[in-house]
Amino acid sequence: MSHQTVTPSPNNELFPLKLTRGVPPVESFPTDKLAECACAALADHGNIALQYGAAGGFPPLRAYLSAQAGVAEEQVIIGQGSLQLLDLITRTLVKPGDAVFVEQPIYDFTLGILRLGGAQITGFPLGNDRPDLDALEERIEEGARPVFYCTIPDFQNPSGVVLSKAKRERLAALAGRYDFYIVEDIPYRRLRYRGEEPPTLFSLAPQRVIQMSSFSKQICPGLRVGYALGPQPLIEKLTGLASATYINPSYLNQAIVYEFIQRGWLEPQIAGLKEIYRARLDAALGGLKAHMSDLASWHEPEGGFFIGVWLKNEALRAADLLEAAAKASLTLTDGRGFFPHKDVENFIRLPFCALTPQELEMAIARLAGVVRAL
Amino acid sequence: MSHQTVTPSPNNELFPLKLTRGVPPVESFPTDKLAECACAALADHGNIALQYGAAGGFPPLRAYLSAQAGVAEEQVIIGQGSLQLLDLITRTLVKPGDAVFVEQPIYDFTLGILRLGGAQITGFPLGNDRPDLDALEERIEEGARPVFYCTIPDFQNPSGVVLSKAKRERLAALAGRYDFYIVEDIPYRRLRYRGEEPPTLFSLAPQRVIQMSSFSKQICPGLRVGYALGPQPLIEKLTGLASATYINPSYLNQAIVYEFIQRGWLEPQIAGLKEIYRARLDAALGGLKAHMSDLASWHEPEGGFFIGVWLKNEALRAADLLEAAAKASLTLTDGRGFFPHKDVENFIRLPFCALTPQELEMAIARLAGVVRAL
Repeated sequence: MSHQTVTPSPNNELFPLKLTRGVPPVESFPTDKLAECACAALADHGNIALQYGAAGGFPPLRAYLSAQAGVAEEQVIIGQGSLQLLDLITRTLVKPGDAVFVEQPIYDFTLGILRLGGAQITGFPLGNDRPDLDALEERIEEGARPVFYCTIPDFQNPSGVVLSKAKRERLAALAGRYDFYIVEDIPYRRLRYRGEEPPTLFSLAPQRVIQMSSFSKQICPGLRVGYALGPQPLIEKLTGLASATYINPSYLNQAIVYEFIQRGWLEPQIAGLKEIYRARLDAALGGLKAHMSDLASWHEPEGGFFIGVWLKNEALRAADLLEAAAKASLTLTDGRGFFPHKDVENFIRLPFCALTPQELEMAIARLAGVVRAL
Repeated sequence: MSHQTVTPSPNNELFPLKLTRGVPPVESFPTDKLAECACAALADHGNIALQYGAAGGFPPLRAYLSAQAGVAEEQVIIGQGSLQLLDLITRTLVKPGDAVFVEQPIYDFTLGILRLGGAQITGFPLGNDRPDLDALEERIEEGARPVFYCTIPDFQNPSGVVLSKAKRERLAALAGRYDFYIVEDIPYRRLRYRGEEPPTLFSLAPQRVIQMSSFSKQICPGLRVGYALGPQPLIEKLTGLASATYINPSYLNQAIVYEFIQRGWLEPQIAGLKEIYRARLDAALGGLKAHMSDLASWHEPEGGFFIGVWLKNEALRAADLLEAAAKASLTLTDGRGFFPHKDVENFIRLPFCALTPQELEMAIARLAGVVRAL
């Protein structure tokens, strides 16, 4: 989780470089602005922000989010990050042994939450425009009854792929026909560096979709403010479970986010992030092309935090790769963790936002050397 | 949860009064001091406070809490309030059908968390110095194997009773002999208005006790900063589950608490609260004595937030009482909720901290009238 800086090692070893978790760089944090927002939140909303509250969230932020999405306030729940909301969703909807469908690879923490809930997880491999929906429909026709389908449709973690408009429409139709929910997690959606965005699944099937997002990637993770939108009866169940398990998330943090938005700072913040990240994406893609064209293939994302890299050598073992990379002072995330059955060895998630363009090129060149030597 | 203020009704009805949840009064919140702490937290710890972090908590606060308790940092986990930590404890230790012992009455949210975990809950009635440990030991001798015993030993919610030193020692010995944990929840311990405090259970049996507390009652609830201490292997499991389900609680809130403590403001804050609450406790006890001596009995607490009131009329039905009180513009919490089987009708939790002395006397006089008329 820690921020990556390059410092010379005392033993003339290589600079340590981390291609691990997807964290924003600390230099992107609007710290002074947040201090102003914290003071304003306490001055204007102190009696509410410092007291216990309802589990749905700080009312002004809840009202803002519902207005943005064009839904009732009762259709919004704000949590301590969106992962916590996925935990609430799973605890509310999934009984041990229930089927849950996911795209694969998928965010390893998503899989962890589903496993905690006792879900029977089935993964559908992603292509360049996302999963094979024929296979998904076939599985349902064979008798599988998923409680929900989990997707990160925009700049997916870990692959970077975007779900095409046609597939969104078909997935929404399938959810209606076969009566399952879609959990649509969109933390990266606003971080589009080029190209055009397709409609959200929530906009296509509001009765069937629970949409989650957060301010972790738009402002900073440490505020721990995420939210979900969905059908009102389901959001009310989530709110009930939230109240029973933690009473309410901190309104102070939510009030800080609200003040930040009220001051008109969110859009410039996102624009600034895009500037930083676009250059990093381009450096990573340039590095891959220069150093790894013969070793791997990858989808070129138009946004987000990640490039999913598939090594051509399918005989390679992930454990060997991690070990060899570590010897070259390069830390990788175990790519197997992004698959429900941890059975894919040749996948690497390359997060490009926390490293500078120079660090990215160094890391990729080093990775190429490691792969070539295996 | 909302703060109680007395405002005249337009219809010449009675002022609405709430004797419901145990919330601190907003006038006790050190709002300006917290604004200073927020600025300092962001200026001095911004890069850590605004980033993702480890689930155990903001390292300086974790170090402070471990030093205070004389334990290793790895024995401390800081969460989004202590209820969330009880949820983690239950998810980690309790399988559906496992036995959990509690004192009864007990905080209704504690019971809710245990029910969510599928625990088989057995309650042991409280006396003036707490539960009948002969009955508890007998139950174990009969074959019951509790995973843990849940207690709020200091100024219990909802009864106000304190567990005596002798019973603490015996309970600690029983936990060792029969190999169960004690979950010791002490949010009110520092709020002692008179008398001497017995040792904590954690100090008596550190290998068998998980101690929880929070800053909700010492500074304010809205920061959502609670913590637990316990045996290191267990705390590491809790930290793993915390990381898997919400990554980390907000370090910003924890850094604000840390700055508040560093400035030497915690002890004067607690001293100020004691001044406010002692007067309210005395007003509530005076009101009970004046208006309800013939109708009820109660333990006189030396601290905390609550007086547990037992109505002498055991034929009375709680639903009738709630309805009659509501007609008199007096909102009560359903006393049945504090019992595992919701089978006690004549118990009222009287929270005395959120109301002024005048409001308390009004509320108790009104309550007496309602009870007398039933």
